Amino acid sequence: MAALRDEFDLPEGVIYLDGNSLGVLPKAAPARLEKAIRQEWGTDLIRSWNSAGWIDLPQRSGDKIARLIGAGPGEVTVGDSTSVNLYKVLNAAASLGADKGSRRTIVSERSNFPTDLYIAESVAQAHGLELQLIEADEIDARLDERVAILMLTHVNYRSGRVHDMPAVTRKAHAAGAIAVWDLCHSAGALPVELKRSDADYAVGCGYKYLNGGPGAPAFVWAHPRHTERMDREQWRQPLSGWLGHAAPFAFAPGYHPASGIQRFICGTPPVLSMTALECGLDVFAKAETFGGMAALREKSLALTALFIELVGQRCAGLGLELWTPREPALRGSQVSFARAEGGYAVIQALIARGVIGDFRAGDPTAAAASPDLLRFGFTPLYTRFVDVWDAVEHLHAVLTSGEWREARFAARAAVT
Amino acid sequence: MAALRDEFDLPEGVIYLDGNSLGVLPKAAPARLEKAIRQEWGTDLIRSWNSAGWIDLPQRSGDKIARLIGAGPGEVTVGDSTSVNLYKVLNAAASLGADKGSRRTIVSERSNFPTDLYIAESVAQAHGLELQLIEADEIDARLDERVAILMLTHVNYRSGRVHDMPAVTRKAHAAGAIAVWDLCHSAGALPVELKRSDADYAVGCGYKYLNGGPGAPAFVWAHPRHTERMDREQWRQPLSGWLGHAAPFAFAPGYHPASGIQRFICGTPPVLSMTALECGLDVFAKAETFGGMAALREKSLALTALFIELVGQRCAGLGLELWTPREPALRGSQVSFARAEGGYAVIQALIARGVIGDFRAGDPTAAAASPDLLRFGFTPLYTRFVDVWDAVEHLHAVLTSGEWREARFAARAAVT
Repeated sequence: MAALRDEFDLPEGVIYLDGNSLGVLPKAAPARLEKAIRQEWGTDLIRSWNSAGWIDLPQRSGDKIARLIGAGPGEVTVGDSTSVNLYKVLNAAASLGADKGSRRTIVSERSNFPTDLYIAESVAQAHGLELQLIEADEIDARLDERVAILMLTHVNYRSGRVHDMPAVTRKAHAAGAIAVWDLCHSAGALPVELKRSDADYAVGCGYKYLNGGPGAPAFVWAHPRHTERMDREQWRQPLSGWLGHAAPFAFAPGYHPASGIQRFICGTPPVLSMTALECGLDVFAKAETFGGMAALREKSLALTALFIELVGQRCAGLGLELWTPREPALRGSQVSFARAEGGYAVIQALIARGVIGDFRAGDPTAAAASPDLLRFGFTPLYTRFVDVWDAVEHLHAVLTSGEWREARFAARAAVT
Repeated sequence: MAALRDEFDLPEGVIYLDGNSLGVLPKAAPARLEKAIRQEWGTDLIRSWNSAGWIDLPQRSGDKIARLIGAGPGEVTVGDSTSVNLYKVLNAAASLGADKGSRRTIVSERSNFPTDLYIAESVAQAHGLELQLIEADEIDARLDERVAILMLTHVNYRSGRVHDMPAVTRKAHAAGAIAVWDLCHSAGALPVELKRSDADYAVGCGYKYLNGGPGAPAFVWAHPRHTERMDREQWRQPLSGWLGHAAPFAFAPGYHPASGIQRFICGTPPVLSMTALECGLDVFAKAETFGGMAALREKSLALTALFIELVGQRCAGLGLELWTPREPALRGSQVSFARAEGGYAVIQALIARGVIGDFRAGDPTAAAASPDLLRFGFTPLYTRFVDVWDAVEHLHAVLTSGEWREARFAARAAVT
């Protein structure tokens, strides 16, 4: 499995524990992109929509992602951003849900990634629904006959806590609600079983554990029972762009949605970014030789368990509180520590030493505890156990030496 | 001005007259993209949001586009597709328009690019409006107190006909309607004066005359009087993603729109495609030495006039009917000919000879004539007068030899 690390170009002298924010460069990508730039764009130009298969990119990449998330071929498409795709599926869930009259709420976690909440606010407003934000441990109690949609991120971006997708989906369905899952922190990080979980809709991004490059396009999935109904009812999603038309090249003035998931495509996709994403996805085909997502999950849990254990040993009493579940089944592929003082500076001091994690500020307005967090991602495709050991030693040094108190580490950059 | 052609890598043996569909490769792009891939993504990774200015890309490219379309700095942002951006501005126009109660229609041209109509259908449905499709010469007559929004593409993608933006906008405003302009076929092709025209909203794509690469992200502009009102009313566009938040890195659970045009940003932008677009835009800065858009317009009109004249001479009686206005002021940067028989095969035969134009099927359901078209784009940055002469000779040869009747030219590819 260590061979998979050779599929990536990792910077020298860096321990990269931020693949949960931006994945690393697949070795195949520079040459593949150079071909896309010089040959496909530069030489073949407009002909590449056919000859280079640009037109198939959304479906081709979608099928590669489908294998990682327990979806079938032809059920996933790629394009736009996670936020835009979430807008599409929330509109579907709000429009096509049963009991529309009596079910008035979209329920989500207050600590969900904010863009999900912002988009849900917007859809709720348009559909006369109300967005209710709760804590993870309140979900069971809040699933009742008033809930139209339960929208969760499978792995929380702050805590790294995993929801039990089959169990939560079952409870949502038992209450008559639709289950919408954001897989940004799970696709490529741990096995996802959308269909076995009987989930309704899912979206996710391409640039974290899928290593698709900065701002890589996102994916969208809907259970076939929903797309079949959309087909029967000729249902259109609101972003009814030309590439989601049943016959885009007929240039007809009226919209007729393409069948299945293809209706969720909107405008012309960003081909270069789509091409980079495909390079990231192709590494997962190679990972199948080594046991695929199940084996990657095993390694991921071993990495995060080791990190938790070593930080517990080496950094005890140094102001770090574990904020990620110790129980493996509840843990995604990252580990977060709460820090009361100077969390941002600690991360900056680590980065200066070549250990890249990131900082997520707490939410002082939250009713539940929401501290500042140091976040460390462990992408099983390329993170080594030696990286874990070395990272902990650096963390120990930063905390015990007090170097994080140096003024240069306190100033916030534009993107933090 | 011929020196500007040297800014592009054009394929050998090809006369490329399809820059109105996909612009060519700027010479600076391969090296710039290699840096973005290897250095910014591969080596600097997440730090590049600050160190490489990824976070500034939407605004930086927006400012470069603003100079080409008569908008001010800080008024344009880049991201998503044209269709998605049109959805945002149509929602703004429908939500913030005056007399919302009595104005019930969105008016557009039936021969507008279909995605604009599909998106307008969707927004009309959501806002209880009706989309009315008319012919270009009916606009004056149809602008009355029932019209909420007039949505037009500045240069028609089929005919290449230009609307008089200041005059049409004035009439729209006199009737109390909002004017929304699609600049896909005009940005970078001819001077656009959004503010002098007193236009309300505009969108446009990056991959045609701006040479931003396949599926390059799109841009969006709103007149400051509208964004100032949005600021006062804290108005949010429906695709309220995290990068359009007033404080995206505060990760607050509630949405508060960024000020001005930045509220129109949604999710994380596709950095590689954004970087390619910037290379295309940078050529326009060099074009300023040669007289900028005014000089490019002069060359464009000379190219299209020559093409019209030569086809008239060499291909008279060969079944081509000019479908683009002869009057320069009414002509964009393309020339279309109607063809009753075998139009697709004629284009394929030309492509086999290395002359790349494209085919757009007619609309047999239209009340007005809507024939099959042969479309030829003349991007003034890189098209030479010798290309025009040679292209006409090939067209003459294809038509007189009858080679377009060969069976190999009749079969439609996936993308036509």
